[in-house]
Amino acid sequence: MLRVAVDAMGGDFAPEVNILGAYEFVKDFEVEVILVGDENKIKSFLPEKRETKGIISVVPAEDVIHMDENISSALRRKNTSMRKAVELVKEGKADAVISAGHSGAMMALSFLLLGKLPNVERPAIATVMPCLKGYFILLDAGANVDCKPEHLVQFAFMGEAYHKALFNSQSPKIALLSIGEEGSKGNEVTKEAFKRLKSSKLNFIGNIEGKDIFFGQADVVVCDGFVGNIVLKVGEGLAEALIKMLKIEIADIITGRLGYMMIKPAIKSFRKKIDYSEYGGALLLGINGTSIICHGRSSAKAIKNAIKVAVEMAKKQIYTRIAESLNQMEEMNESQNSVNRLLCS
Amino acid sequence: MLRVAVDAMGGDFAPEVNILGAYEFVKDFEVEVILVGDENKIKSFLPEKRETKGIISVVPAEDVIHMDENISSALRRKNTSMRKAVELVKEGKADAVISAGHSGAMMALSFLLLGKLPNVERPAIATVMPCLKGYFILLDAGANVDCKPEHLVQFAFMGEAYHKALFNSQSPKIALLSIGEEGSKGNEVTKEAFKRLKSSKLNFIGNIEGKDIFFGQADVVVCDGFVGNIVLKVGEGLAEALIKMLKIEIADIITGRLGYMMIKPAIKSFRKKIDYSEYGGALLLGINGTSIICHGRSSAKAIKNAIKVAVEMAKKQIYTRIAESLNQMEEMNESQNSVNRLLCS
Repeated sequence: MLRVAVDAMGGDFAPEVNILGAYEFVKDFEVEVILVGDENKIKSFLPEKRETKGIISVVPAEDVIHMDENISSALRRKNTSMRKAVELVKEGKADAVISAGHSGAMMALSFLLLGKLPNVERPAIATVMPCLKGYFILLDAGANVDCKPEHLVQFAFMGEAYHKALFNSQSPKIALLSIGEEGSKGNEVTKEAFKRLKSSKLNFIGNIEGKDIFFGQADVVVCDGFVGNIVLKVGEGLAEALIKMLKIEIADIITGRLGYMMIKPAIKSFRKKIDYSEYGGALLLGINGTSIICHGRSSAKAIKNAIKVAVEMAKKQIYTRIAESLNQMEEMNESQNSVNRLLCS
Repeated sequence: MLRVAVDAMGGDFAPEVNILGAYEFVKDFEVEVILVGDENKIKSFLPEKRETKGIISVVPAEDVIHMDENISSALRRKNTSMRKAVELVKEGKADAVISAGHSGAMMALSFLLLGKLPNVERPAIATVMPCLKGYFILLDAGANVDCKPEHLVQFAFMGEAYHKALFNSQSPKIALLSIGEEGSKGNEVTKEAFKRLKSSKLNFIGNIEGKDIFFGQADVVVCDGFVGNIVLKVGEGLAEALIKMLKIEIADIITGRLGYMMIKPAIKSFRKKIDYSEYGGALLLGINGTSIICHGRSSAKAIKNAIKVAVEMAKKQIYTRIAESLNQMEEMNESQNSVNRLLCS
């Protein structure tokens, strides 16, 4: 039975939603979810009578990392629920870990305890985003704010492997987020990354502009973590603001209320489509293990879906696939280097 | 009578929409619009009988800068409609200039021919964006892809002056676009810019996250041109994609069609609110003159509105106000430097 460690204490609405999300998941699936945190609190939120396909177990941890904490102080403490949850994966006692707590600390702990894959300099956060044609993967969504061209290339290879594993795709279209379609458009970092991606074996379709990402022209959109995080949050905020603006307009017309009632199911299903909690958190790519970072404001449903993704990624051993993809990247770099050496000698 | 030079040949739908937009404007306002470009074409699109408050005149130019052209080759040619239009401002024959053509070329020509204001290193493109509370100004929206902290500080001072002139505001709230509210969050450039803005006399409210900009928490949002252009285009694309996604959902339910008919006026007025063409182009800040860059896909309405903004900004002599604001920034820098010298001596 697959085992997923859940940091029960991390997130704005923890531990309640984490525990409920875990419970909802094991009701339907034969998986062991290990809740890590304050034992009494966890037990108080769990239903007494449980008829579930999977099982819930508890690993106690007295300490909690808070949202606004300084990362280095958070890492020093040894008994936090987040650290203990990650340690379970390190010790082979769990196959994957998820946390909705301090995302910087979760990234650092995953990196420190599980280690990074060969040929990766910087792990990246990959998020699944909705678009007209379904979904696309955006990375890095906030792990690395200042990137070099080689980092973007690594993100592209990792993103390709993730897309293949998540959607069973053959040759996902990879694009670089920039300010014009031509390779000459962009900043110093993206222009150099463009050249390297162009000569790679990836299905690189070139630069993509911000206006096109939501129409599904690319399967994997690559950018640095500063830009990625801003795009992610602009998307979140704009969708919410647009719905509010539309509602204000609807309230302003006579037939508005009745019309709104009639399209309400559509708005509901539309909201569901653009709701981050449907996608169950962001996978940390480049780590030697399966580690998932959830939105701080995660609901029980978001936690449940994150566990689902964790199980799927652990089953598919996503990190070994990413390691293979990075290995191919490295082989490509080496053969390029030997060509360069030959040309120069 | 104020005079606005319009590059008649620039833009995806030029010259037709440019000429019609100009005509629509002079019908209502006592302004001279000078159309620069192919004389025969211009005359063929102008209505024969004209009852207008303002006047239209034509300055011939044989050559055109194309959208996909290399900037340096575009700048070398002396008879392009864009260059001639900018020259009219330089020679004192027009009070403002607008173009929907190649935006990089328009920026370079404005910079070269009109010159930049003192204390500005890099001119910036400022766009007006809709939000829940009305509008906010985003800059830089694409002029400078690689920025230093001092550039972001200059953008903040220029943006403040622009907001005051455009909205008659007293003390607009300035924010820095970043990935967390604390000053410690961001990339190397924004973190340093944060410190400098914090100690400035601006009404600096700190960092703003992508999810908050459309709720109107800041009046001026500052970022580098790479990030700004991506945010601008993500906004444009996402709004369009969301409306399409919502329509698909509405078509899927039985009461959808009728409900949609009932809220249609609301969707129309909502679309108008988020339509870029309502805001009439982006002003180039830091140039010694009034120069406006329009969207390549500008409609006649967008051109008309851009002329309106051009007139308003020329009347208010926006560039002298920006010069004053930059002067204050420089005085602040100097006094800071003398304090530093005192402390170090």
